[in-house]
Amino acid sequence: MSQQLKYAVFGSGSWATAIVKMLCENLNEVGWYMRSVYTKEHLLKEQHNPSYLSSVEFHLEQLKLSNDINKMAAYADVLIFAIPSAFIHSELEKLTIDITNKTVVSAVKGILPESGLLLGEHFHDNYNIPFENIGVIAGPCHAEEVALERLSYLTISCADQDKAQAIADVLSSDYIKTKISDDIIGTEYAVMLKNIYAIAAGIAHGLGYGDNFQSVLMSNAIREMKRFIKKMHKMKRNINNSAYLGDLLVTGYSTFSRNRMFGNMIGKGYTVKSAQMEMSMVAEGYYATKSAHLLNEKNKKKTRTPIIDAVYAVLYEGKDAKKVFKKLTDRLD
Amino acid sequence: MSQQLKYAVFGSGSWATAIVKMLCENLNEVGWYMRSVYTKEHLLKEQHNPSYLSSVEFHLEQLKLSNDINKMAAYADVLIFAIPSAFIHSELEKLTIDITNKTVVSAVKGILPESGLLLGEHFHDNYNIPFENIGVIAGPCHAEEVALERLSYLTISCADQDKAQAIADVLSSDYIKTKISDDIIGTEYAVMLKNIYAIAAGIAHGLGYGDNFQSVLMSNAIREMKRFIKKMHKMKRNINNSAYLGDLLVTGYSTFSRNRMFGNMIGKGYTVKSAQMEMSMVAEGYYATKSAHLLNEKNKKKTRTPIIDAVYAVLYEGKDAKKVFKKLTDRLD
Repeated sequence: MSQQLKYAVFGSGSWATAIVKMLCENLNEVGWYMRSVYTKEHLLKEQHNPSYLSSVEFHLEQLKLSNDINKMAAYADVLIFAIPSAFIHSELEKLTIDITNKTVVSAVKGILPESGLLLGEHFHDNYNIPFENIGVIAGPCHAEEVALERLSYLTISCADQDKAQAIADVLSSDYIKTKISDDIIGTEYAVMLKNIYAIAAGIAHGLGYGDNFQSVLMSNAIREMKRFIKKMHKMKRNINNSAYLGDLLVTGYSTFSRNRMFGNMIGKGYTVKSAQMEMSMVAEGYYATKSAHLLNEKNKKKTRTPIIDAVYAVLYEGKDAKKVFKKLTDRLD
Repeated sequence: MSQQLKYAVFGSGSWATAIVKMLCENLNEVGWYMRSVYTKEHLLKEQHNPSYLSSVEFHLEQLKLSNDINKMAAYADVLIFAIPSAFIHSELEKLTIDITNKTVVSAVKGILPESGLLLGEHFHDNYNIPFENIGVIAGPCHAEEVALERLSYLTISCADQDKAQAIADVLSSDYIKTKISDDIIGTEYAVMLKNIYAIAAGIAHGLGYGDNFQSVLMSNAIREMKRFIKKMHKMKRNINNSAYLGDLLVTGYSTFSRNRMFGNMIGKGYTVKSAQMEMSMVAEGYYATKSAHLLNEKNKKKTRTPIIDAVYAVLYEGKDAKKVFKKLTDRLD
C-alpha cells in the first residue's frame, strides 16, 4: 500500500470526525460519507460538523463528501467505518457494490447487535473480505482531545503488518502517535468490553462507591477482559498495552464518557429507559453488554465475568443495582 | 496467632489513623504510638486526631496511647508501622528493645531513604526478624475513604499465610475486604513505585497533557512496575491484582494524592523546593524516585524504566520538565 491509496471515513459522529481530521494532516483528499444531507450541507457551508467536534475547521478542498455509501465505497481503497454499532446494520444494508478488494477498517466501538459479530467478522462473512484486508483502530483516544490536538496514541491492528503500518502512517502527526499490532480480534473486543466496564464504573459511582472501590473494579475489569478475550481468540498479547488497558482506563475514569454517565444515572436510580431518554442517545455499552453476555453463554465452559454479569442483570433483567453491586463486591478482590 | 494477640500501630498520620480505626472495629484494645505529645493529649481530650482524619471519633477505652516507642513495642505482639519513610529512620533509632519474636508489619509507603531498604528488609537486617514474621499492608486505599467507611480492599502479605490471614481478619469489617498474598517484597515495592508514577501523572497534567495521554502513561507504568519488581524479586504474581494495579490507579488518578499534586506543581513550573514549601510537606514519591533510581543503577543489566528516569531527571537533575516529558512521550507506546 502506498500513500496514493484513497481513504474514506464512514460516519459523522465525534470519532468519525476526529479520524477525518487526523487523515487531513497527511492526505490531500479524504473521502467522508455521512447519512445526513443536512450535515453535509452544513459542512460545505460552515466548514465544520454541526453536531460533533464543531470547533474543528476543515478545508473543503481536502474533503470529498457524499451521502451515497456506494459511491464513497467505490471511490476509496481503504474504508474506515466509525458508525455507532446500533446504526451499522441499517447503513450496511445500503452497501451493495462489490468491495472484495478493498481494505476495511473498523473504528466501531462495539459489536453488531443483530448478529453478535465484530465488524471485521461481518465484512469477512458478508463481503468476502479476507482477514488480511481487515484492520482495527483502537485508542485510548477521546475524540474531544483529538480536536484539541492533545497528544494521543492509537493502535492499528491488521494481520498484514505492512497494511497496519500504512494506515498508521496516514494517521500519525504531531499529536498522534501510532503503533501496530496483529491482534485484530482482541483489540476489537477490548474496544467493546471497555464500554461495559465504564457503565459498571458509572453505576458504582452513582451508588456512592468511592475511588478505592473504583480502582478495585478496574483492576478486576482488566483481568476479566483478559479472560474473556483469551477465550474468544487465544494468542500472545499483553493486556496491559495501551490498546487494552489504556483504552479501558480512559473510558472508565472519564467523567465525560457517555457510558460512564449512563451507568451513573442507573446507579442514582434512573430506569434504563429514562436514563436513555434523558441522554437522548443509547450508550454503546448498552448493546455491548447484551452481546458479551450472549457470546459468553455460547461458550461451552463459561468465562468467569462477574462485572459483565452484574451490568447485564441491572440493564436487561431489571435487577436492583444496589443489590447486584453489593453481591458483586464479594466476587471482586 | 489468635485474636488474643496485641496489636499496635506506630505513627499518627492519616494512614496510621485509618489503620487504628480498622483495628478498633475488631479489637478491645489497640496500641497506638505517636511521637507528638500534643497529638496524644489532643486525642485524650477530644477523642480524635487533631491533624488527620479528624472526623473519626475514637473510644478512648479501646486505645492504649503512648509516646514511648519502646514501651509500645514491648506491649504489642504485632507491630504495624505507618510512619512516613522520611521519618522512619529517626524513629527507629529510638527502638532499642529486643523485638526478635514480634511480628512486624509495614504500612509504610516507601523505602528507607538512608539505606534504600524496604521496611521489612530493614527489620530483618537490623532486628533479626525472620521473613516469615514480616508482613505488608497494601491498598488500594485512600485513608480518607476509610474515615468515610467507604468500601475498600486491602491485601495483606506475609510469607506465613496463617499470619497473613490473622492480620487480615483483624482488619476486615463491613467496609474493609481483605485478601492475602505471599509476595511481601513485590507488594512493598509496588506501594513505593506507584507514588513515582503519581508524580509523573501530576507533572503530565501540569504540563497540559490530557486524559488520553494519562491512560497511556498508566498503561506504561504498570508494565514498567512489572519489569522493575520482577528484577528485584522474581516470582509468579499477577501485576493486575488490586495490590499492584489497583493501588497504582487509585493514586495515579486521584486529584487528592499528595504525590500527584506535587507533580502537578512541578509541571506548572514550580521548582522542586518551592513546590515542597508550598505543600509544607515532602511527597513520599520524592524519596521513592531517588531510591528506585539507585536500586536500578545497582542492577547489572538495568531495567528499562523510562518513567522513573524522567521523574528522576526532573526532580534530581534539574532538567526541564517540558523537555523531559516530550522525550518521554517517544519512549512510551
